[in-house]
Amino acid sequence: MPSYAISQVSACDARFPLPRGAGTDSVHTNSEYCLAVTLLESEGGLCGTGIALTLGEGNRLVCEAIELLAKPLPGMAIEELMSDFGRMSQQMADDPSLRWLGPHKGVVHLALASITNACFDLWAKSRGVPLWRLLLDLAPEEIVRLLDLSYLEEVMSKQDALELLHSKLASRPDREPILQSGYPGYDTSVGWMAYDDDQVRDLTAHAIGQGFKAFKLKVGSADPERDLRRAAMLRKSIGDSGILMFDANQHWNLPVAIRRCRELAQFRPLWIEEPTHPDDIHAHVVLAREIAPVKIAAGEHIPNRVLFKNFLQAGALHYVQADCTRLAGVSEFLTVSFLARKFGLPVPPHVGDMGQLHQHLVLFNNIALGHEALFLEHIPHLRGHFIFPAQVSGGYYQTPQEPGASCDLKWTTGGSH
Amino acid sequence: MPSYAISQVSACDARFPLPRGAGTDSVHTNSEYCLAVTLLESEGGLCGTGIALTLGEGNRLVCEAIELLAKPLPGMAIEELMSDFGRMSQQMADDPSLRWLGPHKGVVHLALASITNACFDLWAKSRGVPLWRLLLDLAPEEIVRLLDLSYLEEVMSKQDALELLHSKLASRPDREPILQSGYPGYDTSVGWMAYDDDQVRDLTAHAIGQGFKAFKLKVGSADPERDLRRAAMLRKSIGDSGILMFDANQHWNLPVAIRRCRELAQFRPLWIEEPTHPDDIHAHVVLAREIAPVKIAAGEHIPNRVLFKNFLQAGALHYVQADCTRLAGVSEFLTVSFLARKFGLPVPPHVGDMGQLHQHLVLFNNIALGHEALFLEHIPHLRGHFIFPAQVSGGYYQTPQEPGASCDLKWTTGGSH
Repeated sequence: MPSYAISQVSACDARFPLPRGAGTDSVHTNSEYCLAVTLLESEGGLCGTGIALTLGEGNRLVCEAIELLAKPLPGMAIEELMSDFGRMSQQMADDPSLRWLGPHKGVVHLALASITNACFDLWAKSRGVPLWRLLLDLAPEEIVRLLDLSYLEEVMSKQDALELLHSKLASRPDREPILQSGYPGYDTSVGWMAYDDDQVRDLTAHAIGQGFKAFKLKVGSADPERDLRRAAMLRKSIGDSGILMFDANQHWNLPVAIRRCRELAQFRPLWIEEPTHPDDIHAHVVLAREIAPVKIAAGEHIPNRVLFKNFLQAGALHYVQADCTRLAGVSEFLTVSFLARKFGLPVPPHVGDMGQLHQHLVLFNNIALGHEALFLEHIPHLRGHFIFPAQVSGGYYQTPQEPGASCDLKWTTGGSH
Repeated sequence: MPSYAISQVSACDARFPLPRGAGTDSVHTNSEYCLAVTLLESEGGLCGTGIALTLGEGNRLVCEAIELLAKPLPGMAIEELMSDFGRMSQQMADDPSLRWLGPHKGVVHLALASITNACFDLWAKSRGVPLWRLLLDLAPEEIVRLLDLSYLEEVMSKQDALELLHSKLASRPDREPILQSGYPGYDTSVGWMAYDDDQVRDLTAHAIGQGFKAFKLKVGSADPERDLRRAAMLRKSIGDSGILMFDANQHWNLPVAIRRCRELAQFRPLWIEEPTHPDDIHAHVVLAREIAPVKIAAGEHIPNRVLFKNFLQAGALHYVQADCTRLAGVSEFLTVSFLARKFGLPVPPHVGDMGQLHQHLVLFNNIALGHEALFLEHIPHLRGHFIFPAQVSGGYYQTPQEPGASCDLKWTTGGSH
């Protein structure tokens, strides 16, 4: 096998305007998805692409942080790098001159996400396989060396992680048929905040026609009556058997969240997502108690494994929406998935990557860790910009077959957006 | 009074090499203090200076974020801005195109710290008074309008904050003599990690001669025996009556922290600072129980009021080391000080500003909020770069008399560093 030594790291500030009203919620009123892209060129001619999501002009800060953080990488052979990636991830995260900016959160951590994702993409391309295949073929010891388990020792030691993997080996064949059937998706793009009622109805009917059975609605309007009206309309559109989720995007404080969640409970949501500030573990605990049996989902703004550990220890959420473009990439996403498995909670990712990379990771989580194959969020607005956009058919993500992590963008490889 | 409308915002990337070994700890091995400086020029000719600390080349990311976040400020009159600053702080913190980078943490929040501190400096200069005087002369209603209390409603409403201020008005005269006697300091610069034993001994003897009675030692060495030897030496140098604090700078995981803190307890520290990861609230709770009666201090990496609220609710720390260059400036520092008062805990700040700005804030905390005048950290390495360096005499910070917040740097006003 050629060494595929990394010859150059560069960052691209890629910005994509969205269709009118798309991407809007109670907190984010702009309509631009931005990707801080890491490009890892290798001597073998392959290029690894990694992405992290932001929502505007701050994207260039992440790109600059990528160039600062990735300085140790040029010259390293990809196999050597990935043979002990947990250590390298920790070393980059703890760079003594950049660590102060986090630690392990904010701009520098988003940069580490993008870098890490590029490393995994290059690795899978260098082996000529899709990332899900690469991960499933690794030995348990190799998987664990991808992870930075520091500060988790009391709940997830290396030995614990190994034992978890070994305990699921025998039952893997029971779960592997999902590679043929596909992984269920759910649709977030029917219920953006700025969409009017007719648009929500039309999009929902269209999504049902495409085979989706689960749908998300943005709530947290300045006018709570609007939330209730839209929720009633969507519940009616999807029928009693449809699955409905609400997403407040952190808009409510605790007392308001308690009231609003209780009002929305009548529409039988599977979860209410980001009901309040994403750092407020205690508020999530109180809310979970006050609105039971309504369940809480969160994660797109929980920045690292340490805070996730705290959420899990406190019983502060029910659905672990880890995102490999918020956490430090594939590696920390897997780490959080190990933690969630230990605490018995499902991982339906938030897809800052538009599902491109997560479609690989949920297959690993299901087959290798025994996570429930719940469903994966689907947001279609950027699919025209990816070289291999996720294929969703009949409401199911079809297993990707191209080598790598499916994150290559047309415009960073000679095309334009 | 002239309007002092803000005419221009600029950011300066100011870096200061430190003397050999200074500033080193178990995690930060470089020796450079960097300030992301906000300069607010006003029509009246006065310039407000705000600072946030970083430790290296990431400083320029904070400077760029300052320029992005501060866009709403030019054209605003300083009195108008400060008459409802809590709302403006919230608006900048929730900028829809930048909020994703945090929220309320990391690079964008450091930038907000620097901007906010510049606003308070310009405000005090425009009134021709030191910041402590300005704050003490405000009506309780004016103080509360400086604060963004969102996401704290269940523990600190505006009414709660007003009542706290009103409840301390009558006893203020009992505390005002501190303006003459000065505020006690403690010395962090005797025990940097890279200093050898002779250097620690010599510096301690010198600091004792200067009147200091409290001293901090960096711990978390790769070799735990070194920590114990240095701790024994420092305890011997300062005698039984000296006050000793240890600072591990987040180096230990929970199981290791329990062992090391128990070993270090024999030297009777007032606190052990940052024993583990600053996001790990639950680990702090467990540690506090396991090492009692040894106390825990933390805060220099707790990024916002919401996480502080969680630390306080959980009983995860005993000394609240809020830092107005990590939190969103003076405003969020005061907010956390209100919270700490409610939970009955002292606020000995971490001084990312080298004590320049905090020397004003601790006077307010003591006189207006009734906080104990415990002591204020003192780090002297940058004093030559400030136009009005803090005056520490006999181990006491002397009350600053110049207008503003004492953050003007020589080189940003025509000098050089």
